[in-house]
Amino acid sequence: MKAAVAGASGYAGGELLRLLSAHPAFEIGALTAGSSAGGALGAHQPHLPALAGRVLAETTAETLRGHDVVFLALPHGRSAAIAAQLGEDTLVVDCGADFRLDDPAEWVRFYGGEHAGTWPYGLPELPGQRDLLRGARRVAVPGCYPTSATLALFPAFAAGLAEPDVVVVAASGTSGAGRSLKTHLLGSEVMGSVGAYNVGGAHRHTPEMEQNLSKVAGTPVKVSFTPMLAPMSRGILATCTAPAAPGLTAAALREAYAAAVKDEPFLRLLPEGVWPATAMTVGANTAALQVTLDERAGRVVAVVAIDNLTKGTAGGAIQSANLALGLAEELGLPLNGVAP
Amino acid sequence: MKAAVAGASGYAGGELLRLLSAHPAFEIGALTAGSSAGGALGAHQPHLPALAGRVLAETTAETLRGHDVVFLALPHGRSAAIAAQLGEDTLVVDCGADFRLDDPAEWVRFYGGEHAGTWPYGLPELPGQRDLLRGARRVAVPGCYPTSATLALFPAFAAGLAEPDVVVVAASGTSGAGRSLKTHLLGSEVMGSVGAYNVGGAHRHTPEMEQNLSKVAGTPVKVSFTPMLAPMSRGILATCTAPAAPGLTAAALREAYAAAVKDEPFLRLLPEGVWPATAMTVGANTAALQVTLDERAGRVVAVVAIDNLTKGTAGGAIQSANLALGLAEELGLPLNGVAP
Amino acid sequence: MKAAVAGASGYAGGELLRLLSAHPAFEIGALTAGSSAGGALGAHQPHLPALAGRVLAETTAETLRGHDVVFLALPHGRSAAIAAQLGEDTLVVDCGADFRLDDPAEWVRFYGGEHAGTWPYGLPELPGQRDLLRGARRVAVPGCYPTSATLALFPAFAAGLAEPDVVVVAASGTSGAGRSLKTHLLGSEVMGSVGAYNVGGAHRHTPEMEQNLSKVAGTPVKVSFTPMLAPMSRGILATCTAPAAPGLTAAALREAYAAAVKDEPFLRLLPEGVWPATAMTVGANTAALQVTLDERAGRVVAVVAIDNLTKGTAGGAIQSANLALGLAEELGLPLNGVAP
Amino acid sequence: MKAAVAGASGYAGGELLRLLSAHPAFEIGALTAGSSAGGALGAHQPHLPALAGRVLAETTAETLRGHDVVFLALPHGRSAAIAAQLGEDTLVVDCGADFRLDDPAEWVRFYGGEHAGTWPYGLPELPGQRDLLRGARRVAVPGCYPTSATLALFPAFAAGLAEPDVVVVAASGTSGAGRSLKTHLLGSEVMGSVGAYNVGGAHRHTPEMEQNLSKVAGTPVKVSFTPMLAPMSRGILATCTAPAAPGLTAAALREAYAAAVKDEPFLRLLPEGVWPATAMTVGANTAALQVTLDERAGRVVAVVAIDNLTKGTAGGAIQSANLALGLAEELGLPLNGVAP
Repeated sequence: MKAAVAGASGYAGGELLRLLSAHPAFEIGALTAGSSAGGALGAHQPHLPALAGRVLAETTAETLRGHDVVFLALPHGRSAAIAAQLGEDTLVVDCGADFRLDDPAEWVRFYGGEHAGTWPYGLPELPGQRDLLRGARRVAVPGCYPTSATLALFPAFAAGLAEPDVVVVAASGTSGAGRSLKTHLLGSEVMGSVGAYNVGGAHRHTPEMEQNLSKVAGTPVKVSFTPMLAPMSRGILATCTAPAAPGLTAAALREAYAAAVKDEPFLRLLPEGVWPATAMTVGANTAALQVTLDERAGRVVAVVAIDNLTKGTAGGAIQSANLALGLAEELGLPLNGVAP
Repeated sequence: MKAAVAGASGYAGGELLRLLSAHPAFEIGALTAGSSAGGALGAHQPHLPALAGRVLAETTAETLRGHDVVFLALPHGRSAAIAAQLGEDTLVVDCGADFRLDDPAEWVRFYGGEHAGTWPYGLPELPGQRDLLRGARRVAVPGCYPTSATLALFPAFAAGLAEPDVVVVAASGTSGAGRSLKTHLLGSEVMGSVGAYNVGGAHRHTPEMEQNLSKVAGTPVKVSFTPMLAPMSRGILATCTAPAAPGLTAAALREAYAAAVKDEPFLRLLPEGVWPATAMTVGANTAALQVTLDERAGRVVAVVAIDNLTKGTAGGAIQSANLALGLAEELGLPLNGVAP
Repeated sequence: MKAAVAGASGYAGGELLRLLSAHPAFEIGALTAGSSAGGALGAHQPHLPALAGRVLAETTAETLRGHDVVFLALPHGRSAAIAAQLGEDTLVVDCGADFRLDDPAEWVRFYGGEHAGTWPYGLPELPGQRDLLRGARRVAVPGCYPTSATLALFPAFAAGLAEPDVVVVAASGTSGAGRSLKTHLLGSEVMGSVGAYNVGGAHRHTPEMEQNLSKVAGTPVKVSFTPMLAPMSRGILATCTAPAAPGLTAAALREAYAAAVKDEPFLRLLPEGVWPATAMTVGANTAALQVTLDERAGRVVAVVAIDNLTKGTAGGAIQSANLALGLAEELGLPLNGVAP
Repeated sequence: MKAAVAGASGYAGGELLRLLSAHPAFEIGALTAGSSAGGALGAHQPHLPALAGRVLAETTAETLRGHDVVFLALPHGRSAAIAAQLGEDTLVVDCGADFRLDDPAEWVRFYGGEHAGTWPYGLPELPGQRDLLRGARRVAVPGCYPTSATLALFPAFAAGLAEPDVVVVAASGTSGAGRSLKTHLLGSEVMGSVGAYNVGGAHRHTPEMEQNLSKVAGTPVKVSFTPMLAPMSRGILATCTAPAAPGLTAAALREAYAAAVKDEPFLRLLPEGVWPATAMTVGANTAALQVTLDERAGRVVAVVAIDNLTKGTAGGAIQSANLALGLAEELGLPLNGVAP
């Protein structure tokens, strides 16, 4: 099958290409870019020598048409126009935010502008979601933070073990902000420093977390979300906590998590006492997960580590594409990471 | 005045010496160590050339006697025996945990062994605490995490603006773990990775946070605390959140914080919209603070950045020593940090 | 074919397993360790969930026998005894130093103890070396620094374009030192700092560089080698310079390098003006190479980047094993790296 | 005395302010900036709370006039015009390159445009230089790399112990490139990676190194210089090597270095066997130095660590200003660094 990548010069695009290159079912077709169009991929992704000579085309429907799947790794707000011009014969997998939210009012509140619509949400681990992705022609890839927070807490909410008043505090590597020229993303500013940003409900991933967890819980879930920028290129570590349901025991909690991940190819509940670190997942499509009951504070505390570019973006996108195209869900997606 | 440092070969000891060297009121007397005794300081603290030739003595009461102040930067559990042999004419400032907790049962639960007692708690910013430190002969320096969490939330609890159900998630640099040879502290393991540890109420700093905030709130405060190790040498960034009191407005919240920090020499409430990063405080005795009301989630969210070795340990220790010795509280303590 | 890894709990062992897991011709057999024997691999290599449950056996000839290939990732000096007990039906690939040097006197000078012998040297790119590796039953994997320096300069010496008076200054990530508990390898010491070590001919990789380059040059080559530890987990960047041969032109130099890498699957001569960075090669078996003629100083300057664990150790080992076993040299070895 | 800083919003400007704030002889006067003029310093230097409210003026001669000393931390090429408008009653210390080179032809070759002239060179450790700086009214602060290379090798060349064919390979932290928005300076690109740039005589600091060492040697010295960008914010580690003079012994070499640093307040020859790391000098005005004779390769190898922003720029500037203004050379300049 032929796969195109729009936005091939960015970090998400690079990760898509790294994974697609090693994927047995995909041949890499068109690569497109914005201001970098016309140049060779090698100038932007020097870690991908196997594709160094490929020339970047402009991001147009003409270029992207005729592929079995098109991965869009574009700035938010750009996907709808392109997708509208691609027929149903092409699977379109959008790594941007345009089609993630159900509620147009939430879209307007957090992103502004018109809501483009809602596509099947590409998180197969969300209960019931896998079936919606099989055969889908459009997929909205989740945000990296919502991926982490949802994977951390869906087992608790699915089993009714937590109250719907969630606190998420998550540290992300800098690649989550893309290859954008902003002072606060300079190496000199980032190295040796952890900082918070978009605190107090300001981050756009907040309604997406609430949407996911509310569906699982069957009741509205509030999320207080604080993101942090950490001095590393890749990875998200999310600490997610909610009040324990009355009478919850540690054993029941662990059992629920064990059951929830049992058949999931990419979720790993770590051995008791081992807590996730992002180094466990670099370059892999896995989520490393641990949970405990803090009896003193009366809270469920779940921690998850993912690679924001792999499971959090490009790997998650391919996982959903595999499902949509009738391939094995795990195909071409690494379980083993790169460490140290 | 003459100051001795016990535990001079470690990270806290090194920071004490860096600050004491530049302090106008102190002359550096005895330096002591455990297994490194007999060698020169330069082998352990090559960043302190002004003291490189000083020889490390063994940590005994004989060596430490006769100083105006003795700073103890020893492993937990070692301070009591030394302190008992030093008379009231010597101010003893303990950077360890031995004398921080009021409740012997909590001590036993979290540290094991016998509770050594309780000394005046060295956090002058805690309401009412400054007066208890003036003229004190013994000071228990707070833990680095409790320093951060307490500074983040005392203004809210002092003003009755938050409910006593706190979540603290804090990222620390590796120096917080000391210069100890453990695999998970190796550079290869730490760089490029953020990981959680001691989750679910297991960290020993939990009861200390609760003790501080409960005193300020006048009611028992529960704390769910999750620490993380981040790929940097210094710094703590703590995100601290609690349910907002009914009817709380953003303006009232900010006003309470502005009032709380107004006369504090080392607390900085950042301009609105600016969130703390640890790089703002490296090498300085300051805490950079910001707060917001998340109206959607109904929570107060406060974030604080400190240098775990400076305000979080050695700087905090000297600040309290200044008070105890009748010196100006700010004396010898840097406001400006080292960045980038 | 069945592959065993001795020393599976270390960094080199982990990288061997990561690559072998994705290698189409190998099935992973015995995994052995020293003090970690008896435990599960997952405790040591949490980034390799696909192998987490595999139990580590003790490193004995009994355990390692019966495999098509045994990779030894043991401390220096341990390989000879094991290898002597494995018959010629097993390919033995030693990632240690024991069998790299031709000259027993050099061995004694740099390593001490008795010289164990000399095995075919596993650097297929060295002129003439590839043929010696086809069908070999024993392979000595080069040191990571010698791999980098040799790849940087062999084209110049093979073409007679440089004088045999070489200076190599190379920065390495911390994984090159292994997972060893030494103070100077702690994250707190390493982050934010670059330091030199083993300066002035003291590093054991010096004679190996000289051996390689002397063979290519056909005349004794002197090497002044200075290694540095850099704040990153993986990667070597080596700057290698030698006086230019009389009359050398920039065009002739570039031409020689282009010719030397033309048929090499893992060597990449970067476009003119682009200089190597280790991020180009993380997790890949490639070497990124650039060269220039400094006419002002009269020197050839070549810079090479490799991943010390991949091309510098485990990937190089598998590349040679592929040749020895009659497989395609590139089989199972990634060209694309993981970035950012 | 009153000191102004032009370019106060950049990294060099920030370091000047950090040091001047703690300097007993200086009062901080005008702070100026380019595009940031009109705003408060706090937005650019959040680590300097003691100056947060100071407003940035435009960089004009009017604003800078009337100070005892003006420190210029401007982009290259901007200093001459400003300096021309400031009378001899104001000491002007230029942290830029404009006035460093003696030879106009070299200026044109490496910087382009017209040569602005030559000012007393602000490296007091260069033999004979200290006297030229006392009472000077204009000072050209050395480049950070030339500071490191010159300090590493002047003792050898002053004593005639090395041949004039030098190789310098130096790793720098990212702050050396300033706070400039360039893709290769992004945290995502820099972390986990060491890369070379401006190789083969292309770096503008090359002729400055040659100028310094040639003066000391009394004969033209060639320098092959390769700079590297390392994943840290601050620090330069320079490995500097030259052929040993005939008959040189290790003892004679060490003796020459010991004599050269004996009366230098900021040069530290480390104990034998200890090699410099940049962590030894962070935030300090010191240079940590070590040297050895590589008898096998016939080379003197000297390694030096400095903080590029302190001894390499702002600290060096203040050291020269102290001399020029008749103050004690060491005044206000930290010997102790910040570590870990």
